[in-house]
Amino acid sequence: MAHLMSTSCSIKISSSYRPCGQPLSQDRTVLPNSFTIKTSKSPFKRLVSKGHRAGRSCVVLATAASVSKEVSANPRSGSDRSPNDSSKPQRVMVIGGDGYCGWATALHLSNKGYEVAIVDSLVRRLFDHQLGLGSLTPISSIHNRLRCWKAITGKTIELYIGDICDFEFLSETFNSFEPDAVVHFGEQRSAPYSMIDRSRAVFTQKNNVIGTLNVLFAIKEFREECHLVKLGTMGEYGTPNIDIEEGYITISHNGRTDTLPYPKQASSFYHLSKVHDSNNIAFTCKAWGIRATDLNQGVVYGVKTDETSMHEQLYNRLDYDGVFGTALNRFCVQAAVGHPLTVYGKGGQVSVLFQISTKASMPSTFCLLFHFDK
Amino acid sequence: MAHLMSTSCSIKISSSYRPCGQPLSQDRTVLPNSFTIKTSKSPFKRLVSKGHRAGRSCVVLATAASVSKEVSANPRSGSDRSPNDSSKPQRVMVIGGDGYCGWATALHLSNKGYEVAIVDSLVRRLFDHQLGLGSLTPISSIHNRLRCWKAITGKTIELYIGDICDFEFLSETFNSFEPDAVVHFGEQRSAPYSMIDRSRAVFTQKNNVIGTLNVLFAIKEFREECHLVKLGTMGEYGTPNIDIEEGYITISHNGRTDTLPYPKQASSFYHLSKVHDSNNIAFTCKAWGIRATDLNQGVVYGVKTDETSMHEQLYNRLDYDGVFGTALNRFCVQAAVGHPLTVYGKGGQVSVLFQISTKASMPSTFCLLFHFDK
Repeated sequence: MAHLMSTSCSIKISSSYRPCGQPLSQDRTVLPNSFTIKTSKSPFKRLVSKGHRAGRSCVVLATAASVSKEVSANPRSGSDRSPNDSSKPQRVMVIGGDGYCGWATALHLSNKGYEVAIVDSLVRRLFDHQLGLGSLTPISSIHNRLRCWKAITGKTIELYIGDICDFEFLSETFNSFEPDAVVHFGEQRSAPYSMIDRSRAVFTQKNNVIGTLNVLFAIKEFREECHLVKLGTMGEYGTPNIDIEEGYITISHNGRTDTLPYPKQASSFYHLSKVHDSNNIAFTCKAWGIRATDLNQGVVYGVKTDETSMHEQLYNRLDYDGVFGTALNRFCVQAAVGHPLTVYGKGGQVSVLFQISTKASMPSTFCLLFHFDK
Repeated sequence: MAHLMSTSCSIKISSSYRPCGQPLSQDRTVLPNSFTIKTSKSPFKRLVSKGHRAGRSCVVLATAASVSKEVSANPRSGSDRSPNDSSKPQRVMVIGGDGYCGWATALHLSNKGYEVAIVDSLVRRLFDHQLGLGSLTPISSIHNRLRCWKAITGKTIELYIGDICDFEFLSETFNSFEPDAVVHFGEQRSAPYSMIDRSRAVFTQKNNVIGTLNVLFAIKEFREECHLVKLGTMGEYGTPNIDIEEGYITISHNGRTDTLPYPKQASSFYHLSKVHDSNNIAFTCKAWGIRATDLNQGVVYGVKTDETSMHEQLYNRLDYDGVFGTALNRFCVQAAVGHPLTVYGKGGQVSVLFQISTKASMPSTFCLLFHFDK
């Protein structure tokens, strides 16, 4: 699997290929029947589109633990563009943009006028094949998703298919797309998956930690002003018997006081991988001045956002299985079919749940909103 | 390099091979000139020896942060031996046993009557070749070291050459040697090395984190009563402005109190890898009941121990370069040749230094002593 994912994908589809077998049920938008696609080195740029439909905002809600500087309201762009050149849209790379949170985020940002590129190895779809799982909602291929988005809105989302653990591939994406910001969802994100066996535990930590290390090095090497928004998890903190503070806590001990990183107590190899990431990110912020926001969000649920509900080919995935199904999604589907709810542990856990399409008023969420919507 | 190290080594040397070109300068012990060696699946067992010399104790000094249960005074042995069968020596696997701390530890334990196996990929010697570095003291090959030890003391140290990131290899070593305890030094141990470039940063974290994960899984799968003694570093804690506690600290915050993992603030990709290890180990202690001692020791210096000074072929390495040379070793050599001392940072750092052959009276050190010497 690791070998598979270290190979970047290069795709060329002949002009006789028809991407959509079915017409759009809601919008009746005509999809293109001729186009050229190249991924990896030549991103997904040459789609022909007809039709346009404006959307509203979608945000993945999160609590934020800023590990370094405050999030900038107006992220400076790279060396090839003036920092104050407001005429050019900001360029946001969404790593893991074919996944549940990533897809909704990519569409939202594209709809808001950002230039968006999706970077994804598509390994999440491979997990479904390997484990015999699948989304309850039928989801289109990433290629058809992006064609549909272009057809409906006229907006192009670039596509780079490859593994960010492959630094050569990641370097190409940075040098080709030149992001002003990177939203990094590109990790194995299931705690149960990480606990299946040794192979998957090791895969989870290697994939997540090395992928994020590569992103940090790519920012340092190619786009040092680029802002990283990294998805962690509330689960990094565990369940301490004191209030959880965002990122840091002031401790008085034996007559002295210091403000130190809040202690983490992860409860799976997945959660541990996020702790490792947070520690690596915090270090690079100190050592290199990396501009990063490390989001430690709770469970996200739901399917529809303003953008994903535009067309059935834009639908987001709904996981309801025991490995990737988030709690509320799983409970709803189980209740609907009369299946007992599958509760992990003793059932006494309390967690914050975020609806994927709702903007919350939490100050920490505003870090993300502020950064991208300002 | 990763590929190289994932290949276990299998060696067979013909009986006409002479391992030692020079006679022993001090002991005049006659070394064998006929033997068979097989590593990996068939460890290093068939040495012919002449001569015996008793040694005294050597311990790598350390402060210890026990992450789980108290260290047992008499580690129970595995399923094939009675827990109370004191007639059979305890079996200790020293991972990284060809390295600076590992070599001294392996000889000490062997001399104390433990059955010892060294597991090592020998990659530390490759680093020397790649970076153009070398030990000031001439060091023998691991094969000659072990032949010499056998010749002098009559004691056999088994040898498994391979990479613990290769779980198939590690499984073989566990099933063949059946350790009662594992002392794990088998990590890339230089902070400067980890900061040379991206490739070495990634190597350090992948090698250290995945290797330790594999050791944890091997213990769980094959030797669940086996005690792990894992080498970390004082540097995991950074330089907080409050007293450093071993492992945990009690924090009162907003009217509630909890005892939580002491916050870590690592200052290199190497130190971060040790923090990641500590978090993974702590989790497996909780989740699986792994019996582990996570040592967070300071800088070790010096060369001679009672065992390594028995013969020139047993000499330990003395690194004095800017990458692997520990502070005091480096300073001494630089002073001797009139070279300015190479101080990292501003030169204001204060650190604890441990002489490799000295037993200290620190309680935490006793964890290690108690475990192995009782």
